[in-house]
Amino acid sequence: MIGATEDNNYYELTSPTSLPKATGFLWNEKMMIQVNCRGYAVAQFMQPEPAKYSHGPNMEAKSFMQPEQPYYINHPGRFVFVKDEVSGEVFSAPYEPVRKLPDQYKFSVGKHDIKWRVQSGDIVIEMSLSLPKADVAEMWRVKVINLSKQNRKISIYPYFTVGYMSWMNQSGEYNEELQSIVCSSVSPYQKYQDYATIKNFSDKTYLLAEEKPYSWEVSEEAFEGEGGITMPSAVLEEELAKGDSRYEMPVCVFQYKLDMKPGEEKEYRFLFGPAKDEKEIDSIRFKYFLDKDQNGKDGFRLAEKEYADYIAEGKGCIQINTPDQDLDNFVNHWLPRQMYYHGITNRLTTDPQTRNYLQDNMGMSYIKPQIARAAFLHALSQQNENGAMPDGILLHKDAELKYINQVPHTDHCVWLPICIGAYLEETGDSTILNELVPFADNKEKVTVNEHIDRAMRWLISDRDGRGLNYIKQGDWCDPMNMVGYKGKGVSGWLTMASAYAFIIWADICEQNGRSLVSSEFRLEADKSNKIINKYLWDGEWYGRGITDDNVVFGISKDKEGKIFINPQGWSLLCKAADESKKEKILKSVAEQLETPYGVEKLAPSYTSMREDVGRVTQKHPGTAENGAVYNHAAAFYIYALYTVGENDNAYRLLRKMLPGPDMEDIIRRGQLPVFIPNYYRGAYRQFPRTAGRSSHLFNTGTISWYYRCLTDGLFGLKGIKDGLSINPKLPSHWQEASVIRNFRGAELQIEIKRESGIEATEVYVDGKLADGGIVKDVKKDMVYKVLVKMPVLE
Amino acid sequence: MIGATEDNNYYELTSPTSLPKATGFLWNEKMMIQVNCRGYAVAQFMQPEPAKYSHGPNMEAKSFMQPEQPYYINHPGRFVFVKDEVSGEVFSAPYEPVRKLPDQYKFSVGKHDIKWRVQSGDIVIEMSLSLPKADVAEMWRVKVINLSKQNRKISIYPYFTVGYMSWMNQSGEYNEELQSIVCSSVSPYQKYQDYATIKNFSDKTYLLAEEKPYSWEVSEEAFEGEGGITMPSAVLEEELAKGDSRYEMPVCVFQYKLDMKPGEEKEYRFLFGPAKDEKEIDSIRFKYFLDKDQNGKDGFRLAEKEYADYIAEGKGCIQINTPDQDLDNFVNHWLPRQMYYHGITNRLTTDPQTRNYLQDNMGMSYIKPQIARAAFLHALSQQNENGAMPDGILLHKDAELKYINQVPHTDHCVWLPICIGAYLEETGDSTILNELVPFADNKEKVTVNEHIDRAMRWLISDRDGRGLNYIKQGDWCDPMNMVGYKGKGVSGWLTMASAYAFIIWADICEQNGRSLVSSEFRLEADKSNKIINKYLWDGEWYGRGITDDNVVFGISKDKEGKIFINPQGWSLLCKAADESKKEKILKSVAEQLETPYGVEKLAPSYTSMREDVGRVTQKHPGTAENGAVYNHAAAFYIYALYTVGENDNAYRLLRKMLPGPDMEDIIRRGQLPVFIPNYYRGAYRQFPRTAGRSSHLFNTGTISWYYRCLTDGLFGLKGIKDGLSINPKLPSHWQEASVIRNFRGAELQIEIKRESGIEATEVYVDGKLADGGIVKDVKKDMVYKVLVKMPVLE
Repeated sequence: MIGATEDNNYYELTSPTSLPKATGFLWNEKMMIQVNCRGYAVAQFMQPEPAKYSHGPNMEAKSFMQPEQPYYINHPGRFVFVKDEVSGEVFSAPYEPVRKLPDQYKFSVGKHDIKWRVQSGDIVIEMSLSLPKADVAEMWRVKVINLSKQNRKISIYPYFTVGYMSWMNQSGEYNEELQSIVCSSVSPYQKYQDYATIKNFSDKTYLLAEEKPYSWEVSEEAFEGEGGITMPSAVLEEELAKGDSRYEMPVCVFQYKLDMKPGEEKEYRFLFGPAKDEKEIDSIRFKYFLDKDQNGKDGFRLAEKEYADYIAEGKGCIQINTPDQDLDNFVNHWLPRQMYYHGITNRLTTDPQTRNYLQDNMGMSYIKPQIARAAFLHALSQQNENGAMPDGILLHKDAELKYINQVPHTDHCVWLPICIGAYLEETGDSTILNELVPFADNKEKVTVNEHIDRAMRWLISDRDGRGLNYIKQGDWCDPMNMVGYKGKGVSGWLTMASAYAFIIWADICEQNGRSLVSSEFRLEADKSNKIINKYLWDGEWYGRGITDDNVVFGISKDKEGKIFINPQGWSLLCKAADESKKEKILKSVAEQLETPYGVEKLAPSYTSMREDVGRVTQKHPGTAENGAVYNHAAAFYIYALYTVGENDNAYRLLRKMLPGPDMEDIIRRGQLPVFIPNYYRGAYRQFPRTAGRSSHLFNTGTISWYYRCLTDGLFGLKGIKDGLSINPKLPSHWQEASVIRNFRGAELQIEIKRESGIEATEVYVDGKLADGGIVKDVKKDMVYKVLVKMPVLE
Repeated sequence: MIGATEDNNYYELTSPTSLPKATGFLWNEKMMIQVNCRGYAVAQFMQPEPAKYSHGPNMEAKSFMQPEQPYYINHPGRFVFVKDEVSGEVFSAPYEPVRKLPDQYKFSVGKHDIKWRVQSGDIVIEMSLSLPKADVAEMWRVKVINLSKQNRKISIYPYFTVGYMSWMNQSGEYNEELQSIVCSSVSPYQKYQDYATIKNFSDKTYLLAEEKPYSWEVSEEAFEGEGGITMPSAVLEEELAKGDSRYEMPVCVFQYKLDMKPGEEKEYRFLFGPAKDEKEIDSIRFKYFLDKDQNGKDGFRLAEKEYADYIAEGKGCIQINTPDQDLDNFVNHWLPRQMYYHGITNRLTTDPQTRNYLQDNMGMSYIKPQIARAAFLHALSQQNENGAMPDGILLHKDAELKYINQVPHTDHCVWLPICIGAYLEETGDSTILNELVPFADNKEKVTVNEHIDRAMRWLISDRDGRGLNYIKQGDWCDPMNMVGYKGKGVSGWLTMASAYAFIIWADICEQNGRSLVSSEFRLEADKSNKIINKYLWDGEWYGRGITDDNVVFGISKDKEGKIFINPQGWSLLCKAADESKKEKILKSVAEQLETPYGVEKLAPSYTSMREDVGRVTQKHPGTAENGAVYNHAAAFYIYALYTVGENDNAYRLLRKMLPGPDMEDIIRRGQLPVFIPNYYRGAYRQFPRTAGRSSHLFNTGTISWYYRCLTDGLFGLKGIKDGLSINPKLPSHWQEASVIRNFRGAELQIEIKRESGIEATEVYVDGKLADGGIVKDVKKDMVYKVLVKMPVLE
C-alpha cells in the first residue's frame, strides 16, 4: 500500500483513505506548499513576510503552521471534478471533495514534484505539481486518459480554492486577454501607516490556463449552489455560467469539454499563484506558455527542469547501503532534501530563531558549507558586544522580531561552538575563526574566536550564585516561560549545554593554538559539572531546573513532568554523569520516556497548568513540548547515546524516528517516511489512543542532529582537523554496511563488515591499515577505498 | 413565502433556499447570537472582550463581525440529524448540512426566540432557541413529532459545532456526572504577561442535556468519517462511538433513540455555551434543569420567561397604524427592538466609538431615557478639558481603545448637542444641563452646559485658515483616512455638521436662558455656512472636502466619488443651502445616488485606490462606505428632507430602507424585514447584479435616526420644551394614519386624517383646537385623544 518506487525518486501511497493526512511538500526560494494525498493544500509565499493566495472560507488568523493541520471539506485544495457528459456521473481527483472511491489511486511524493494518478471506471486523471525555482507559482499538469474502447464525452473542471481573501475587498473575473481567472483583494488594514506596506502586496490570485477554457466560474457560491462543494450544482449543468465575483468569495474553476477517442490522452497545464497586478500575470503567461527556447521548449518545461536541478543540489555527504532498506531510502533520498530545505530557506521566515538558524546551518555544513559559513558570520554580526546572542536573526532589511522572538531566551550562545564545531569538522576550514565580524551594537570588528569567547563568557556571567544558568522566559524549550520570569529561576539543561559548549569550544581552541583559552573553558566545564551534580541529580536522573521560588522540578517527587529527556542526554554530552549515573539515566529513560514511537520529551505530560513552569504545561498532553516524542530532543539524546557508546540503544531510537517499517506503525503515525516531523504524539502511557501520530510539520531542528547521528554516530565517519576519523557504531545485529562518504572534495567508498577474530575495529584505506582509524590528508577529487573490519558481537 | 404571524410576534420564512442568508438575532447582557434559516450561527460573548465558544474549522482571526457573512458547509451551526432506524434515511434540521429539501419548512424569527419547524415525510423536528437574560448560554428545545399512523424508530443527533478551539490545547469528553459534553481549551498566547488575562477565560464549551443521551461523539473527525459533514459516517452506524477528543477538533453530538407511537411527541432541552470550569457547568445544570420553583417550574422555563420580559422592555414611544401594514409591523415590532439592542448593549463592545455611543443613546431616549441620560454623562466624563471628545468611550475598567479607535477622528463633538438635544426634546429634562461632570484630564467638575460649550469651541478651534474643519484621519466616515492625515485636509461635511451642532446648541441654550452663548453659536453657524458655500459648492451639489494638497473632492470633475450624500443632506440641516441650491441637490441626488434600494453614500463607487482620499476607496465598490446604500447616511438625508418639508421624497426613501413589500425585492435583499442592516449593496449603476443585497449586519447608527424620521418627520410628533409639537408630514398618497404616542408618561391617541376643505394642518386635543399644533403641559399618566386634520393633496 505504500513504498518507494524502484528508482527511489518517489514514495507512493495507493489509497486515499488509509493515511488521509499523508502529505508531501515542495518549496522554492520564495514559497512553500504542503499538499495532502486527498487534494488539500497549505501554501505560503514571502512578501517578505509569509502570506497566502489560497485561503480558508473564513477570515483566518495569521499564524505559523499548525501541528496536526485540521482538514475540513472547504479546506483550501486543488481538485479536478470530472463529469461523464453522457451518464452524468461525477467524481473528483485526487479524492476530495466528492470522495468517490477510485478504482485505482496513486499518490506519489517526489523530490521536485508531487503526482496523483486516479482511475475511476475507464477514465484516468493524472495530476502533477511542481514549482519554479524563483517565481511564486504552482505549476500544474492535468492529464485525462480514456482507457475505454469507446469514445467518451467528458467535462473536467480544475478547481483551485481562493477562499475568503479580505473583508475589505474581494472580487474575481475571467480575463480573456490573460486566459486567466484573476481574483483581486485588498489586505485588510485600518491605519494609514500600514498602507505603504499593503500597497506593495501581491493581493491578487490567478489561475492561468495554457489552453482556452470552454467556460468558467469565479463565484464559490454560484459554483457550489445547493449541491455544495461535494457535488457542485454548477458541475451538473451543461456549462459553467461564466460568472464573476463581486465582494463574493472567489474561486478559480475552468471547464474543458473533451470528446475522447479510445485510448486518447489530453494534457492541460496551469499556473496558480499570487500576483501584484495583471501586468505581472501577463509576463508570467509569456514566460511560461508563449515564449520558447531554441529547442522549442516553453518556459513551463524549462522551469520544471530548473526546479529539479535546484532540488538536486540538496545532496548529503553519505550514501548508505545497510540491512535496513527503508532506512537507506530515507537517508539517501529524503533526509538531505529536508535538511537542504532548512538550510536554504531558513524555514521561510525573515527572523528565524537564533538556535534554529544556527542548527539549520549546522545541517547545511554537510550540503553547501559555504552557505553555512556565511550564515554563521551573519549571525555573529547580530551578537551584542557583551556576548549575548539575540532572539532571532534578522534576514531582511524590513524584518522584525515577531512572535516567540519577542520573548527573551537564554540558550542562543550555546549553539555557536556546537554548530560551528560541526562545520569545522566537516570542512576543516579553520579560517572562519579568524574572520573579522562586527557586533550589533559596536561596529568594531573582532575575530570569530573573540565573538565565541564572549558568547561563552556571557554564559558564564549569566548565572546565579550557585553557578546555574538563568532561564528567564525560556531556554531551548520556548514555552517553559515561567520557571524564571521573575529573574531567579535557572535551567539545569542550560547549565549542562553550557558545559558541553565549553568543552567543544575548548577542543576547538586547543586545535587552533589557543591553549590558554582552551584551559579556561575546560575549567569552566568541570566547574559546571560539579554544580550540576550538586543541585540537579535526583537519585535516578537529573532534574530539569530550579524555579524562581527555588523549587527543583523534573524530579521524582513531581506528579507530572517527573522526568525530562534533555538533562539526561546532555549530562552525558557534557560528562556530568559518571558511569553509575549513566546507567541509572538509561534505565529511567527507557522505563519512563521510551515508547514505540521514540522517547518522549517529558513524562508524565502535564494535564494542567503549573504556574512555576509555564505555558509548556498548558499545551495538550502529549503534543509538542508537553510530552510528545519531540524529535529534536530525541535526536539530542540519540546523539548523546552514540557519544557514550550505547550503540544499540541509539540505533533503536534512531529507527523509531521513522514511520514503519510495518504498515501498522505507518498508519498510526499517519505520515509517509519522506520527512521527519517535529513530533509524534506522546503521552503514550496517559493517552494511548493518539500516541504516535505525526504532527505533519516538517520544520524541525531534528534533521541536522539526525544527520550527525548518522555521520558521527552510526557510521562513525567524522571529520577531524587532520582528516576523517572512522569508527562505525553499527548496532550489534548488523553484520555489514557500506557507505559512500563525500568529504572535503574526496569520495570514500567504505565497506564495513563484522569479521570473526577481529577484537577492535580496524580501518584499511586502499588496503593499508590506518592508524587510529584515521584517514589523513584526504585529497580533493580523490577516491578512496576503505574497508572497516569490526568485531562480531554476541 | 414570507410574512408576519397574525400576532406579529414572529416573522416567518417557509423555504430554506429562497433567502439562504436570512437571519434572526438574539442578545442578552453578555452575548449575542445571529442564526440563519439553515442552521448556521455566529455567536459571541463578553469576557469582557468578545470571544467565541463555537468556532470555524480553522484558526479564525479575531475580528469584528463581517458584512455579508460567508457561510460554508463546516460553518459553525446547530443542527439535528434525524435517522429513520428502519429505512436508514437521514435528513437534518433545519436544513444544513444534509440539505435534504423538507416537505414543510418554517423559520420563525421572534423577538425573544427563534424557531424552526421542519417536516420530512411524517417526522417533524421543531427547534427553538432562546437566551437567558444574564447567563451566557444558548437554550435549545428540540421536539420530535411522529405524524404518521405507525410506530417509528428514529435516532436524532443534536449537533453543536465546537470547531478549532486552540492550537495550544483542545480536547473534549462526555462527562457523565454533568450529563454534558465538555470541551476544553487554552486560548493561544506566547507572552507570560498575557497569562493573567488568559487564565480567567471561559475556555470550555459545553453541551448540557436535560435527558441522558443514548450515546455521543466528541471528535469531529470521527463523527464525520468518510461520509463528511453532509452525511456523517457515525450517523449511519447503529450507535455513536462514545469517543473523546484529544487534541482533535471537538464537536458536541448526542444520540437519542426514539420508539415513537403514532402522533407521539417528545421534547429535549439543551444548554450550549462557554464555561470556565466543570463547577460552573454543574451549577448551570442545577439552576436550569434540577432546581424548581414553588410552582414546579424549572430554571429553563423561568429563564425563557425572564428573557421574554427583558426583551419586552425594549418598547418604543409610538405605535402606528398606517396604510402600509409592512411598515406598521416593522415599526411597531422590530425597530424598537433593534434600537433597544443598541442602547442596552452598546453593540457588545467595551469601547464603543464615541459617535456610535452617543447616537445609540439618542435612540435609547425613546425607550429608557434614564439609561441615555447616564450614558451622556459618562461620555462627557471622558471628554478632555480642551473640549475634544475621545475616539471611543471606555465602558469597563479593563477596556482599551481598539481597532478603529486607535485612529484619530474629528467628528465626535458634533454628536453631543444633536443627541442630547433629542433626549431633551423627548424628556424635557433640562436638569441634565446643570449636572456636574469632570473631564478625563481634570477632576474639577463643570456643568454639562460648560462641557458642550467647550466641545463646540473645540470644533471652532479645530479649523484651518479658511474656517473649515480638519478631518485628520477621518470624520463620521472612518475609512476616509487619507484626506487629512498630513494635517491640512478638511471635511466639508464636518464643517456643516458643526454648523448644525451650533444651531442645535444655540436653540438649547436659548431655551434655557443662556442667550449670550446662544448668540455666539448662531453667529458661528452663519459664519460656517458662508465658508461652506464659498469653498464647497460645486454648481449642482456640495463637495465632500478638501485634501491635504488642497484638492476639492466629491465634485463633478471627479471620475469616481463625484457626489457624496452626506454634504447634501447636512447642508439642508445646517441651512447652508438656499432654496435654489436645495432644488439642485435634490435633483442631483435623485439622478446619481438614488436606487431602488435607497440612496447610495457616494457615486460612482471607487474602483481603485485614491491616495488622497484613503481606505474608503479600497473597499469593494458598492460595499460599506464605498457607495453602498449605507443606511446610516441615508437616514441622515431622509431626516434632512423632512426638515425642509420634502415629505414625499423623504417617505419614498424611508420605505426603501426596508426589504419588500414585494417578494422580488425581498429576495434581492436576501433579508427578512426584522432589522435594518448597516448597508444594502450599492454601485447600482456599476454592478447591477449585486445591488440591493443586505450586509446582514444589524449594528448600525441608522436605527435611532430612522426612529427620529418617524417621530419628528413622518408623524411629526416631536417634543419641545413645553410639550408635544404635532405636525405630521404624511406622504401625499396617505389619507390617514393613527399613532399612539407615549410621551413624558402620557399616552396620546392620535388620529390623522386628510380632509377636504382643510388648508393647513389643524390639531384638536380632546376636541379642542391646539394653538400652533402644540399639546402643552402633557401630564404623566394622562390619556389624550388627538385629532389631526390635514389638507388633501392632489
